[in-house]
Amino acid sequence: MQKKDRRIPEETVRRLSLYLRTLRFMENKGVQVISSERLTKHLNITGAQARKDLTYFGSFGQPGVGYNVNRLRKKIEEILGLDHSWNVILVGCGKLGAALLAYPGFRRFGFRITAAFDNNPDKVGRTIGKVPIITDQKMEEFIRKNDVKVAIITAPAEAAQEIARRLAESGISAILNFAPRYLVIPEKIQIKSVDMAMELESLVYYLKNH
Amino acid sequence: MQKKDRRIPEETVRRLSLYLRTLRFMENKGVQVISSERLTKHLNITGAQARKDLTYFGSFGQPGVGYNVNRLRKKIEEILGLDHSWNVILVGCGKLGAALLAYPGFRRFGFRITAAFDNNPDKVGRTIGKVPIITDQKMEEFIRKNDVKVAIITAPAEAAQEIARRLAESGISAILNFAPRYLVIPEKIQIKSVDMAMELESLVYYLKNH
Repeated sequence: MQKKDRRIPEETVRRLSLYLRTLRFMENKGVQVISSERLTKHLNITGAQARKDLTYFGSFGQPGVGYNVNRLRKKIEEILGLDHSWNVILVGCGKLGAALLAYPGFRRFGFRITAAFDNNPDKVGRTIGKVPIITDQKMEEFIRKNDVKVAIITAPAEAAQEIARRLAESGISAILNFAPRYLVIPEKIQIKSVDMAMELESLVYYLKNH
Repeated sequence: MQKKDRRIPEETVRRLSLYLRTLRFMENKGVQVISSERLTKHLNITGAQARKDLTYFGSFGQPGVGYNVNRLRKKIEEILGLDHSWNVILVGCGKLGAALLAYPGFRRFGFRITAAFDNNPDKVGRTIGKVPIITDQKMEEFIRKNDVKVAIITAPAEAAQEIARRLAESGISAILNFAPRYLVIPEKIQIKSVDMAMELESLVYYLKNH
């Protein structure tokens, strides 16, 4: 049973994604039951932490035996909302946008990029990775017609704020932002910024201190 | 004074990167003193959490007044090892590799990609974003000669493990991995995997549950 507790820590949700990857890998290998220690072995997380994370959502495991791999995998997919697929749009078809359009990982986890938008007439009308590039003037119309809720911003920093505002006004509820700047958006909209330099920063911190 | 405590939580280090971005932004705007509440205002983090994070490394703030923006910015850069620049290599010059070579954010935070490697003869000899593409046969030699410690893997999943092994054997100590697979490497090497689908997953979780 899933508790709809709004105070589930963001880090717990993040770790669920990690557990899901291990579970899928194990399930493909034919593993049927897994202990919390084995579930977290390569993740730099303790088994106790995994058990604690999972208790937010109910009780799944059998003490001394472990978790049923298939059942826990399905349960986590359900918790994360991955038991159905999501239509996603991408805005900004520069180098990073093009790379993400060709990235196979999204689809594997139920995210289908249905359209990409750009303001460059040379790009509009082309496709990248089978995704059509549409003029950004039709962005709002597309979002409303197709009831799109999730958008990825890969536009340049100076354009990102205006794009975010337009997305918010047309009914987008979640934004994954790759533009290297802070975006002001209404509070009801979920936003996550991916900052590649930040990932390197925490790496070199450990390089320096260990 | 920096305590060389090995048990500083990874999340604290991550938040330091976030504080650093706010501090740079504020410093550019001419702000001289900042409260922990203002420091964390847009970060979905409480002021108390920031104060707790910073006490791992000493005492910087003045109760009731706040933190000196310039001094705290410099201190965090020093803690994170960003007070000097790092030479970085990138392996795998496909779409994502090319996008990262053109990404301005790395350099802004002191990461200089000095060379990129690929096994495709059509790519070798070209440059992307001023970075030369070198045959991967010369990778080990380049790492040793230039004492490179940090590498980014943007190779396809099936090539990533062998590349990681070669990097580890030539003296690389930190790897930022974009290939969508788990990499087995010696424990002394720091590794971080960026998984774009995972970022979307935690977004849609909040979409579903709030």
